[in-house]
Amino acid sequence: MPPAPLALSSRSERTTDSPINGLIRLALENPALVSLAAGLVDEESLPVEEVADAAADLLSEPAAGRAALQYGTVMGYAPLREKVLHRLAASDGLRPADMNLTPDDVVVATGSQQLLALLGDILLNPGDIVLAEAPTYFVFQNVLRGVGARVLTVPMDEHGLDVDALESLLRRLDRSGDLPRVKLIYTCDYYQNPTGLTLSRERRPRLLELARRYSRTNRILILEDAAHRELRYEGDDLPSVKSFDRRNEHVVWTATFSKPCAPGLKTGYGILPRELVGPLLRLKGDHDFGSNNLTQHLLDRLLASGAYDAHVARLRQVYRAKRDALLEALAEEFRDAPDVTWTRPAGGLYVWAMFPAGMESGPSSRLMRAALDEGVLYVPGEYGYSPACGPVPRNEARLSFGVASLDQLREGVRRLRRAVRSASRPAGRNAAAAACAAAQ
Amino acid sequence: MPPAPLALSSRSERTTDSPINGLIRLALENPALVSLAAGLVDEESLPVEEVADAAADLLSEPAAGRAALQYGTVMGYAPLREKVLHRLAASDGLRPADMNLTPDDVVVATGSQQLLALLGDILLNPGDIVLAEAPTYFVFQNVLRGVGARVLTVPMDEHGLDVDALESLLRRLDRSGDLPRVKLIYTCDYYQNPTGLTLSRERRPRLLELARRYSRTNRILILEDAAHRELRYEGDDLPSVKSFDRRNEHVVWTATFSKPCAPGLKTGYGILPRELVGPLLRLKGDHDFGSNNLTQHLLDRLLASGAYDAHVARLRQVYRAKRDALLEALAEEFRDAPDVTWTRPAGGLYVWAMFPAGMESGPSSRLMRAALDEGVLYVPGEYGYSPACGPVPRNEARLSFGVASLDQLREGVRRLRRAVRSASRPAGRNAAAAACAAAQ
Repeated sequence: MPPAPLALSSRSERTTDSPINGLIRLALENPALVSLAAGLVDEESLPVEEVADAAADLLSEPAAGRAALQYGTVMGYAPLREKVLHRLAASDGLRPADMNLTPDDVVVATGSQQLLALLGDILLNPGDIVLAEAPTYFVFQNVLRGVGARVLTVPMDEHGLDVDALESLLRRLDRSGDLPRVKLIYTCDYYQNPTGLTLSRERRPRLLELARRYSRTNRILILEDAAHRELRYEGDDLPSVKSFDRRNEHVVWTATFSKPCAPGLKTGYGILPRELVGPLLRLKGDHDFGSNNLTQHLLDRLLASGAYDAHVARLRQVYRAKRDALLEALAEEFRDAPDVTWTRPAGGLYVWAMFPAGMESGPSSRLMRAALDEGVLYVPGEYGYSPACGPVPRNEARLSFGVASLDQLREGVRRLRRAVRSASRPAGRNAAAAACAAAQ
Repeated sequence: MPPAPLALSSRSERTTDSPINGLIRLALENPALVSLAAGLVDEESLPVEEVADAAADLLSEPAAGRAALQYGTVMGYAPLREKVLHRLAASDGLRPADMNLTPDDVVVATGSQQLLALLGDILLNPGDIVLAEAPTYFVFQNVLRGVGARVLTVPMDEHGLDVDALESLLRRLDRSGDLPRVKLIYTCDYYQNPTGLTLSRERRPRLLELARRYSRTNRILILEDAAHRELRYEGDDLPSVKSFDRRNEHVVWTATFSKPCAPGLKTGYGILPRELVGPLLRLKGDHDFGSNNLTQHLLDRLLASGAYDAHVARLRQVYRAKRDALLEALAEEFRDAPDVTWTRPAGGLYVWAMFPAGMESGPSSRLMRAALDEGVLYVPGEYGYSPACGPVPRNEARLSFGVASLDQLREGVRRLRRAVRSASRPAGRNAAAAACAAAQ
């Protein structure tokens, strides 16, 4: 007799599988596939020796080793919190006090992703509204769907999120009486995942000003996801939106060691308005009493010794070369296809490609089928859009240059070119029907 | 002008600070205090050399090191999942297949605490019912409060959870029509936190049988929190409740490397009915894409080399001596106080003390005040009870022997004896009023 059925929570019913997981599985099952889909990092440049040295150093001192292997605090290792705070301030040309910040406003987490998930939980009731870029980061959309939030999106252009469009949206929400449900504006403002676009210098204070101005009955927070800030390959560093929030009232800043150092250390951090720290720590305490203590101690040593900065400098060279290889291959292979365009990111790990209008790129599309036949994988751009905000563009794709080697990047683009050519031909019998269910 | 107020979620409003955090702060602020409160582990025996060797080993192999520093999977490192599954089965004298289990039923997490929190999220809607031992684990109560669950408790005796009382409760819930809201029975069945009591051999299959029998419209799961199973100081190992669940339908087993190895590695694992794995991974993916990969690889090496087993064997000696020191000191100091009694745990880290009826032990009690004056800290027993289930015993306390040294344990008990003596005297002027607000 089968057992009685499981009754899951509403939360669980709203929590769907990340669409990317299916793609990752495809890539793992077919090693010949060139994956421009996975958001993993470059494997060859992972700092194995640096971490080995930090671990040997830390664990050769019995007292320090024991402290790293004991429980830490929910908030995180104090020297590490102090260092990341000073680094953020310094990269904005400020001291922490200029932003009304102390290390007690910093929380270390199990990657910045954990902060996104916990912030969703502590801020959002079902029906609450989050404003985000279109397209936006896939996984945070999942989080928001899980807590039952409504995601309304704002277009981007080459200067990042369109702040005029944001203002129009806020005005509309005000008129419709929905403003009190707006809790959060989410922006991935440095070399955005998925488009590679960056919020311009001019728009940064403007974004904060809008959040302030429309904070009527309740505060509208900005979640500034700066996961890729350190991976900058050209141009000047831009000040964080956080740096304009001099009273530490509106901006939650999140960052991670996963991209600029090593995902396996699974450590990120957030810098938050003080009133949010307590609620965040209470929920985080229920989840884990604090993130992995050993890797916090290792990262503290990597920062203190300078090994971290040296590694980031090397990593920039590695990824700049990869970005250039991808962009050059796109320019070369698609030189005869002026209706295929793409972004030119100044940092990060992603290029956004736009195919001709009408050429769908979704998991069941001819293009995806052709790409898999050719042996290349991308992430369908439609995953970045919210269906609540009008027609979803279905002819876009995220191309990641994190994992693939230089040669693979060039080969991947050649394969993509052949796939686009094949998907451009008049559809044969059953071609559309023979869609790629496997990628779903 | 102050900023507009923050509007937090209902979830956040239900999530309260763990009462123990205030106690931990007190202990940190006063190093002369003997803390019998903190649930930390023995510091001297932390496996610094073993972890140093495993790290040197792992990170000296470039490919292995890179794999550990790259993203892992949400489910966890496959060799580690396989090892922990075989270990559980072997400790129950079984093979995984005997329990219808494969490594794909195992999920690695950021400590077993993360599993408790995520399971709360995927199983429970506000108003759903969880049945638990009285008293039960403080932090899981916080989790359940956060998701809005109702916790109904069942008394314990020297054989652990009273399964007859559980059956009566299930029958009452059936009659009142509340049975469909019962989702989970939570048991910490090995050397329970907080009482040190263990569910007897006879009651184990009976517990499963009750969960099966009352699973009418929906399945009642058992969450078997076996965090302390490996820390056994006497007697035979008892089969897990999981070992009776031969079709893998009812029992979620959770365990951790924090207590038997090192909390700083912040790694635990769960073994789950297959239908729960997908929902759990979806939510966990939104939280972190998988737990710290480096420490999973380190633990896999510690298990493979035998260093882990050797460490657990040593740890048993250390904690057995500590338990004995605490029990002997209690017997010595309270030999003239027959109305003070305590449990005699066969493993784990906790002893449960019961003071005379009427001698309150709460954070504002005369006893707590006297204990702080004497320089000893315990956890008030009332934190383990749910006020929904009748009068809360207010004269109990959890005494942990994890952190304190042998000498500190003896000294702590001497101080506790003096505090009990002082709290037994007729109350002087203002004595009751001068309660210890600081401990709250």
